[in-house]
Amino acid sequence: MANERPLILISNDDGITAPGIRTLISVMNELGDVWVVAPDKGQSGMGHAITVNSTLHVDEVKIDDGPQKEFSCSGTPVDCVKLAISELLPRKPDLCVSGINHGSNSAINVIYSGTMSAAIEAGMEGVPSIGFSLLDFSLDANFEPSKKYIKSIAESALEQGLPQGVILNVNIPKLEEDKINGVKICRQAKATWEEEFDRRVDPRGRTYFWLTGKFVNLDKGEDTDEWALENGYVSVVPVQYDLTAYFAMQHLNSWDL
Amino acid sequence: MANERPLILISNDDGITAPGIRTLISVMNELGDVWVVAPDKGQSGMGHAITVNSTLHVDEVKIDDGPQKEFSCSGTPVDCVKLAISELLPRKPDLCVSGINHGSNSAINVIYSGTMSAAIEAGMEGVPSIGFSLLDFSLDANFEPSKKYIKSIAESALEQGLPQGVILNVNIPKLEEDKINGVKICRQAKATWEEEFDRRVDPRGRTYFWLTGKFVNLDKGEDTDEWALENGYVSVVPVQYDLTAYFAMQHLNSWDL
Repeated sequence: MANERPLILISNDDGITAPGIRTLISVMNELGDVWVVAPDKGQSGMGHAITVNSTLHVDEVKIDDGPQKEFSCSGTPVDCVKLAISELLPRKPDLCVSGINHGSNSAINVIYSGTMSAAIEAGMEGVPSIGFSLLDFSLDANFEPSKKYIKSIAESALEQGLPQGVILNVNIPKLEEDKINGVKICRQAKATWEEEFDRRVDPRGRTYFWLTGKFVNLDKGEDTDEWALENGYVSVVPVQYDLTAYFAMQHLNSWDL
Repeated sequence: MANERPLILISNDDGITAPGIRTLISVMNELGDVWVVAPDKGQSGMGHAITVNSTLHVDEVKIDDGPQKEFSCSGTPVDCVKLAISELLPRKPDLCVSGINHGSNSAINVIYSGTMSAAIEAGMEGVPSIGFSLLDFSLDANFEPSKKYIKSIAESALEQGLPQGVILNVNIPKLEEDKINGVKICRQAKATWEEEFDRRVDPRGRTYFWLTGKFVNLDKGEDTDEWALENGYVSVVPVQYDLTAYFAMQHLNSWDL
């Protein structure tokens, strides 16, 4: 980087006008030259979806004050990152940050999260990358206590880089700043969603469903993201996109196929 | 299972009428009682997306002959599996199979694939689960040579189960049956997509993009799925949904956060 300011890409899945991404932009403006490429509407739960059977539109926009450049995109969070790196940014970014998500992406939620998938996609393209989430779904969530943790984690990633193939999944408890106990490096808790669909009947008599469910943490370990968050810590889980379950290979080689 | 025939759930991402799922149904009818819950339209590239801001519709349908029960669902592949296990099936299935996908889900494609995400979702719910893909995108692909491999892998999973937290990603080369050399247990190759967006101008003068790209395998290992497929083998990669990069935790603990 030498004398140049770092180039920072920002995306999210709550859409470009969400308060969470506005906070993230304000913190990143202190660290580098910020380019925002984010969905033009909410894209929660989109996981690693990409747009293969339709077209993508991008518009340069200005949502609020500040030096950042901003682009609103019709696609998914992963589409935004692909378009940013391939078409929009002047060069490969030095860092990608995604969020701040309105709501937790701890434990198995990482796999459904558009916010984390945007960060993972940038990591797959060789960019040090971090997803940030606050454990508060509300639109008027208080993002202030998150700021100093986001800044220090992003600074560390800019200075030291990240191990090859690793993306950070950072979750921040919904607490006042003086109640946060610090940062813990964690593993993903073994937790699940117990589905409970809400079955209804529409005005024409046809049955339909709303996806709902209950989050159940089955993991009593004190090294998990769930434990850290319940105990007032910011959780940092290093995440990888090599999904190979190496431990299972030996067993499978005993099958007669 | 004792005297009961196994209960087998089938889904995919190419839609309930795709030739690939029709082949998979015909093979699974030989092994158990088949329930199909699949998208009512193509859902390629949907990854692990779920429908959180909209409703889901399900219709019982009969696409072709055979003893299977079939349901067409308005949601994503993951929605289909959640609805199947939570609302539609008489009990938790003994096996979930997804596909046969029209096109490869080897290497990093696993992360974008709705077919694999359907299988992974069932695995997360404790069901032994396998995604099958044929390396041929065409609608009139020849699925015949795949059948005996699909049957033997599914039979093994029914008999022996799968290790906790592991799902199988099976890819089948586009070859005549006598040209297939057998089955190899593999790791996910380190390969990437080099994005090349196709930039166009619509009739009203507005720029839009089509996602395209070139698949590049950077991995020279002979233990990868790409190597197996290039050398005429069916590739089987055990996949996990614990995304924690355990090897990176020690390094991150040295950061001053």
